[in-house]
Amino acid sequence: MTQSVYYFGDGKADGDGSMKELLGGKGANLAEMNLLGIPVPAGFTITTEVCTHYYKNNRKYPANLEKEVNAALAKVERAMGRGFGDPKNPLLLSVRSGARASMPGMMETILNVGLTTKTIPGLIAQSGNERFVYDAYRRLIMMYSDVVMEKAAGIEPKEDQGIRKQLEHLLEARKAKVGAKLDTDLSAADLQELSEAFKVRVKQVLGKPFPDDAKEQMWGGVLAVFASWMGKRAIDYRRIERIPDEWGTAVNVQAMVFGNLGDTSSTGVAFTRNPATGENEFYGEYLVNAQGEDVVAGIRTPDPILKKREAKGQVSLERRSPKNFKQLNDIRLKLENHFRDMLDIEFTIEQDRLWMLQCRVGKRNGVSAVRMAVEMMNSRFIDAKTALMRVKPSQLNELLLPSVNPVAERKARKIAEGLPAGPGGATGQIVFTADAAEQWAAKGKKVILVRAETSPEDVAGMHASEAILTAKGGMTSHAALVARGWGKCCIVGCGALAIDSHGKKFSVNGKVYKEGEYITLNGTAGFVYEGQVALDIPDLQKNKYYRALMATANKSRTMGVRANADSGADARNARELGAEGIGLCRTEHMFFDAQRIKAVREMIVAKNDDDRRKAIMKLLPFQRKDFTEIFEAMHGLPVTIRLLDPPLHEFTPNEPAQIAALAKDLKISTRELQDRVNQLHELNPMLGHRGCRLGITYPAITEMQARAIFEAAANCQKRRIKVLPEIMVPLVGHVNELSDQEKLIRRVADEVMAEKKIKISYLLGTMIELPRAALTANQIAQRAEFFSFGTNDLTQTTFGFSRDDIGTFLPEYLSKKILPEDPFQSIDQEGLGQLISMGIQKGRATRPNLKVGICGEHGGDPASVVFCHKVGMNYVSCSPFRVPIALFAAAQAAVSHPSQEDHHMATAKKAAPKAKKAVKKAAPKKKAAKKPAAKKATKKAAKKK
Amino acid sequence: MTQSVYYFGDGKADGDGSMKELLGGKGANLAEMNLLGIPVPAGFTITTEVCTHYYKNNRKYPANLEKEVNAALAKVERAMGRGFGDPKNPLLLSVRSGARASMPGMMETILNVGLTTKTIPGLIAQSGNERFVYDAYRRLIMMYSDVVMEKAAGIEPKEDQGIRKQLEHLLEARKAKVGAKLDTDLSAADLQELSEAFKVRVKQVLGKPFPDDAKEQMWGGVLAVFASWMGKRAIDYRRIERIPDEWGTAVNVQAMVFGNLGDTSSTGVAFTRNPATGENEFYGEYLVNAQGEDVVAGIRTPDPILKKREAKGQVSLERRSPKNFKQLNDIRLKLENHFRDMLDIEFTIEQDRLWMLQCRVGKRNGVSAVRMAVEMMNSRFIDAKTALMRVKPSQLNELLLPSVNPVAERKARKIAEGLPAGPGGATGQIVFTADAAEQWAAKGKKVILVRAETSPEDVAGMHASEAILTAKGGMTSHAALVARGWGKCCIVGCGALAIDSHGKKFSVNGKVYKEGEYITLNGTAGFVYEGQVALDIPDLQKNKYYRALMATANKSRTMGVRANADSGADARNARELGAEGIGLCRTEHMFFDAQRIKAVREMIVAKNDDDRRKAIMKLLPFQRKDFTEIFEAMHGLPVTIRLLDPPLHEFTPNEPAQIAALAKDLKISTRELQDRVNQLHELNPMLGHRGCRLGITYPAITEMQARAIFEAAANCQKRRIKVLPEIMVPLVGHVNELSDQEKLIRRVADEVMAEKKIKISYLLGTMIELPRAALTANQIAQRAEFFSFGTNDLTQTTFGFSRDDIGTFLPEYLSKKILPEDPFQSIDQEGLGQLISMGIQKGRATRPNLKVGICGEHGGDPASVVFCHKVGMNYVSCSPFRVPIALFAAAQAAVSHPSQEDHHMATAKKAAPKAKKAVKKAAPKKKAAKKPAAKKATKKAAKKK
Repeated sequence: MTQSVYYFGDGKADGDGSMKELLGGKGANLAEMNLLGIPVPAGFTITTEVCTHYYKNNRKYPANLEKEVNAALAKVERAMGRGFGDPKNPLLLSVRSGARASMPGMMETILNVGLTTKTIPGLIAQSGNERFVYDAYRRLIMMYSDVVMEKAAGIEPKEDQGIRKQLEHLLEARKAKVGAKLDTDLSAADLQELSEAFKVRVKQVLGKPFPDDAKEQMWGGVLAVFASWMGKRAIDYRRIERIPDEWGTAVNVQAMVFGNLGDTSSTGVAFTRNPATGENEFYGEYLVNAQGEDVVAGIRTPDPILKKREAKGQVSLERRSPKNFKQLNDIRLKLENHFRDMLDIEFTIEQDRLWMLQCRVGKRNGVSAVRMAVEMMNSRFIDAKTALMRVKPSQLNELLLPSVNPVAERKARKIAEGLPAGPGGATGQIVFTADAAEQWAAKGKKVILVRAETSPEDVAGMHASEAILTAKGGMTSHAALVARGWGKCCIVGCGALAIDSHGKKFSVNGKVYKEGEYITLNGTAGFVYEGQVALDIPDLQKNKYYRALMATANKSRTMGVRANADSGADARNARELGAEGIGLCRTEHMFFDAQRIKAVREMIVAKNDDDRRKAIMKLLPFQRKDFTEIFEAMHGLPVTIRLLDPPLHEFTPNEPAQIAALAKDLKISTRELQDRVNQLHELNPMLGHRGCRLGITYPAITEMQARAIFEAAANCQKRRIKVLPEIMVPLVGHVNELSDQEKLIRRVADEVMAEKKIKISYLLGTMIELPRAALTANQIAQRAEFFSFGTNDLTQTTFGFSRDDIGTFLPEYLSKKILPEDPFQSIDQEGLGQLISMGIQKGRATRPNLKVGICGEHGGDPASVVFCHKVGMNYVSCSPFRVPIALFAAAQAAVSHPSQEDHHMATAKKAAPKAKKAVKKAAPKKKAAKKPAAKKATKKAAKKK
Repeated sequence: MTQSVYYFGDGKADGDGSMKELLGGKGANLAEMNLLGIPVPAGFTITTEVCTHYYKNNRKYPANLEKEVNAALAKVERAMGRGFGDPKNPLLLSVRSGARASMPGMMETILNVGLTTKTIPGLIAQSGNERFVYDAYRRLIMMYSDVVMEKAAGIEPKEDQGIRKQLEHLLEARKAKVGAKLDTDLSAADLQELSEAFKVRVKQVLGKPFPDDAKEQMWGGVLAVFASWMGKRAIDYRRIERIPDEWGTAVNVQAMVFGNLGDTSSTGVAFTRNPATGENEFYGEYLVNAQGEDVVAGIRTPDPILKKREAKGQVSLERRSPKNFKQLNDIRLKLENHFRDMLDIEFTIEQDRLWMLQCRVGKRNGVSAVRMAVEMMNSRFIDAKTALMRVKPSQLNELLLPSVNPVAERKARKIAEGLPAGPGGATGQIVFTADAAEQWAAKGKKVILVRAETSPEDVAGMHASEAILTAKGGMTSHAALVARGWGKCCIVGCGALAIDSHGKKFSVNGKVYKEGEYITLNGTAGFVYEGQVALDIPDLQKNKYYRALMATANKSRTMGVRANADSGADARNARELGAEGIGLCRTEHMFFDAQRIKAVREMIVAKNDDDRRKAIMKLLPFQRKDFTEIFEAMHGLPVTIRLLDPPLHEFTPNEPAQIAALAKDLKISTRELQDRVNQLHELNPMLGHRGCRLGITYPAITEMQARAIFEAAANCQKRRIKVLPEIMVPLVGHVNELSDQEKLIRRVADEVMAEKKIKISYLLGTMIELPRAALTANQIAQRAEFFSFGTNDLTQTTFGFSRDDIGTFLPEYLSKKILPEDPFQSIDQEGLGQLISMGIQKGRATRPNLKVGICGEHGGDPASVVFCHKVGMNYVSCSPFRVPIALFAAAQAAVSHPSQEDHHMATAKKAAPKAKKAVKKAAPKKKAAKKPAAKKATKKAAKKK
């Protein structure tokens, strides 16, 4: 039979810090602290397996549980020298959850368990503090009746009719009656009477008496913790944090110690370093004569731990109790030294005796995560790989986004709070429709789109806005999903807003805000402010910690990172952010300019091949100029240019008036143009006449584009600009499609090279964005020199999802957990992943040195980047603003999946055996950390091409 | 060095009949006939490998070729006792193509090779027939200058300026000059002069003299044959017949014998059995004093071989030359006995001596193919498996389609000819637009749609028509593709038609045909007739050969065949045609009826779940009735019912007027309805809110449909009708989608069974129609009891092709050979096939007894049926009219891929070991052909469920 209960206390422990999966984070660390000789109240942990067993077996405990709990409880009693339920020397317990991953505030806790009519007198005698005991008792009743008797029992009271509310009313009534302002103004007698009144009300409302048996209370607490694991709040949290339901929670039952036994008692929460700035200083707060929850609840303002942080009238722990402070600071250093990370600790001083109640890795914001990682690495506290894994790519995002200036924010007028759906800060003028957003933005105005909720039709307007604010919706609402995808600031579910779109205004708490007025959003916190509040625009180059971390990342990663960019300006920006090339240059964006689109339209209405060719060739100088600018910007770096992809109807108007005007312009009859427009109409344009299907049916398009590329390349090369064009044929499903286009492109290449008397090196490859392309990648690789996975389209066809149309069902799919996440945000590794992996393997089976990348939007999603690394891609390509995150995620991937590196090494080995040998002679040492520069260079050359 | 040239003659041969790949069909059979002791003029075959080598090596022959040809030629000279180029005793040669598969008329032939100014006198002396020699000479010049000097040289003259035309003009001029009516009226002197004039003109036009050297002529002939392999006609033919370009052609060089050396000479073509009816009688024709091409060309009417076939004034070979007839008939019997098939033979009698020039398996129509296969099987000439393989599924089609009555056709007035794009016969009234076709058809009229060409917008009208006739387009034009897909009669490329759509008329040869007038099409031949010509509607039950063949097929096949049917009437029809169940019942077809669609629309505009449920539940009685009728029709057979699949916007109108009317009807504002319609609009409906996505977001739909199915099943079962419902959830991409719907369906099933107090056996499964479903089939099979591959949608998503939109590029893809065939017609085994095969393997890895079928339109395509068999499907399902073809193709698959049978046997073994044992005891014999009935029953039970 497996062990269900793990004891800890008195310097001993059944478990240790490595057993987080079984004991939860809290339980494992309580055991570990015991083993480190740190004073911790004795207790025991019921394992996560018990929770899993409980839910798998129709909510039944394992047979051995009760026996093991009793045995562990006896040890606790011995360690603490008290008896649970003992009338004379009673032991009180806390019952807390403890999952593998921290889920702060999502689950339940019961304190003061073991207080009964029998044990109260003994505790009064022992503590000499009647008021303290009755206060603890009334707290226990409130907590227990709410959490165990109501919530865990599945009782759903009407709003404001919950037992907690009712008991709070009794408390308020009592306070009013005796003229007390604060809870602390109530006397022991008041609290005793109140406890009795509570018990009567509990019986009335819930139909059962509050249990007067210590063990019954303890088991009730255990049940409540397990029940809260499947509570709605916890489930929602896990979905967002991607914590599996199957992990379960442990339960920690621990002897209570009290920070509220008078002025020599206190309780506090601290971080071993500053979690906001990352500075290496002890950072925390404590409250004299208080229980831990008082600190967290924020009812009283706590005092700082450090003397130097004292504000006026505050007394730091350092000053109040130097002995306790020294003991605590020693523990802080001991813990950091042991765990090699910043820790979040909870402590209680009971009548001058220090107890540690909790220690766990501390949460931190992006700025501090980066600083701590770099400082710990620099002081050799952790190695470079560990430093890299310490920062979440999403935290890096915080450093990249504008944020509300904290000084300005303190003075700003907060008008509402909502859910922080998209991080960062934004300020702009209020608009109420997507159309208005587009129109105002087109005039150069910065707008914030305010809606009850958004829908797919709003997408263009959302994109044009600085930020989005909605009155309805949760973290997976349309607005939230879309905004996060774009890295855009967004607050949703801001229920206080009463929006009147027709009247172009909203009101909040009685105040009205009209279209055009300014507001400011802090999307990281979910706060809405009146007016324009100053924003901090991050200047990464000034952040030395960021630079150090990225330098480490760039040394560690084996996969290249490119950017998707369609213009010289974008390309320059991408390069500054660290991009090592262009992974996707979409040429169609160059077709929409007013001058150019006319030629496109002439081509569309051309009646024969000659006219069509003539019209198309008008675009040549424009395209050549575009490519020249991009080549200049990317001097020495590869540029992947995708040939025309969208269906031609995207270039024609749809409204009758526009058609008439265009017909006049093109000198054809309206009827003729209308016929052509109708002819181009497609039922499913996503699956229609686009991609290479265009180039095959209208070869002149490909010819013109190829010519523009090679002429631009030749001109640049003559000016000593190093060009590495990679021509990419889109939407290939059959190798013959690629062969057809390849023939044409290579012919044009040869022509241009002959005309210009210059040799241009280039690659010719294809997008892999259709399932059939992945399935027949072995054939396609016969013609393609590189693959670039177009995971946007591949997701559409693999799932049969039109990204434009999923708004009607995807939110429901996510809320019903039919899909774990939006597959357009993060690669569906289970399904799509198979096609990608198959495509790469089959492709490389044909062409071992096939270069493989990704250019879908997944290229900027950290989880997807790790996947790309694992399946052996040479690079990812993403929007310029995601480049630093992709660079960083690639480094994390290399650290967490070094086998991939080995794979690359093997390839590099084959490719360059001589270089390797030379290196070997020069530097016989083998340690990876000490790779000589030459070897690194070889590796890089082989991998990041 | 591999042998390039194979000699045959005089009872000896280097090759034999088994070497068709190397020697081509003709060459292999010439060798074989020699080995059989049949008199064949000596000759040699240049292998197909030489052709392949020629095209692979920049049109160069292998080094050894000339030497080998010379050696073989020497043998031929010895065998025939003549010398090639010998002035006194000249040998003449024919040079003919000979591919592995017959390509009649597609490639070139040169006869009389070796006639030069040197050899002419010798041949005149030898034959004693000057006229014959000069006639042969002028024919050689015409043929050679056309085929070798012009075509093979790649010269493309202007229309009517080709050398052949020019020489024909000279011939006509000569005839006019001397007052000759027929070529045969020209004298030896005329022909001699004409030959000289020909040579002058050849030099003038082509710039080179006609070669006067025997060997040069021979090599010219060889070159022309190879060149014709890559001629446009041959390439087109191969594409249609699916013959690979890589096969190449052989060249047969053979001693000439002459049927035109006077009245004791003749030449003929015969079939060992009647190729039109299949009757076992010698069937053929011959011409006295003629060359073989005269028979084929149809200039003179030939006489029959058999006495009993003589028409007035005809003299059969049997009567004219009983000795030659007996010899020929003996050869006929010898050949049939040797090849065990009906053969097509060519012979020449040169001055009473019989020579066989060719023998090959004879082409036959569907009716005769079936009869011959069955009669040969019944007379134990061939075994059952061979009999099954003798009939092409497409030939079976001929027996199933209406055809123009041959007697009536003879009297009918033919007005035009076109390409036979869709076989069968049809008669109907002329219409000129797709809309008119739909409108007239809706009124119960039979119409034939006449268009210059069709486009995807015409599809509905094409479907409503009896047949389609176009003035433009080829065998792969839109009309041809679509019509063949439907098994609809169609003639395309009927260039004689001058169509005036606006005037609603067409004219042909000056005569005008107006809308509403009748025409009749013979789509098998490509003939258009005036008026209504009687059609023969096939009555399969009267065709005893068909019945015998199908009985054999049904015994042989291991895979089941079901039909796609949506109503009781369809189901009954399908059952009569041999369907063993319904593989796809599309429930949405039941929603479009006027009464019902109102409820659907109420559902669509419902503002809350209650109203939506109420509206949906109005459909329950209708659906229950539909299912009851289908269950009744399929008593004892399984019925797979697919839940609602199409997007809801298919049920709403689009025109403003219709919307206004509907709004009034639904008692909501037009604006409200318009908003809802807009909301439902999708950019890519194919990838939108449909399939199980509907059932998940509107669970009441699934609930209603499940209830209708189970209530109908319960009611039927109470009436002792055996129901086997299989409920199919469409468009599943993730197992969670299926789980969601499964929960709901099983709950309803339990409810209905409890209400009706009856137990209903049913299966619950899913369509596999998205790549992701195939990729994750192992997970989906955890919930699905059966898979049905929806290869229509799977083709759309795997290729990224919208079937509605491919019209703009697919024809070009087929003509450019980018795709070998339309993937919607025949399963793309290379790409899609991987997903299917993977889906089955993964599914069965999870659930070994998973039932697997296909319900896309590919289920009726013979090649696809064979594929389905090979990958281990339990059944295919297709349109009722394709059921016999599918049954037959399944039998052919079992015969040609018995390993699949073994796989099934293994499964059956595991499933029913007891039954197997019992059988073993009862019948210890092992031969497959004598499987005892009990075993067969077991096998069938295991496979055709």
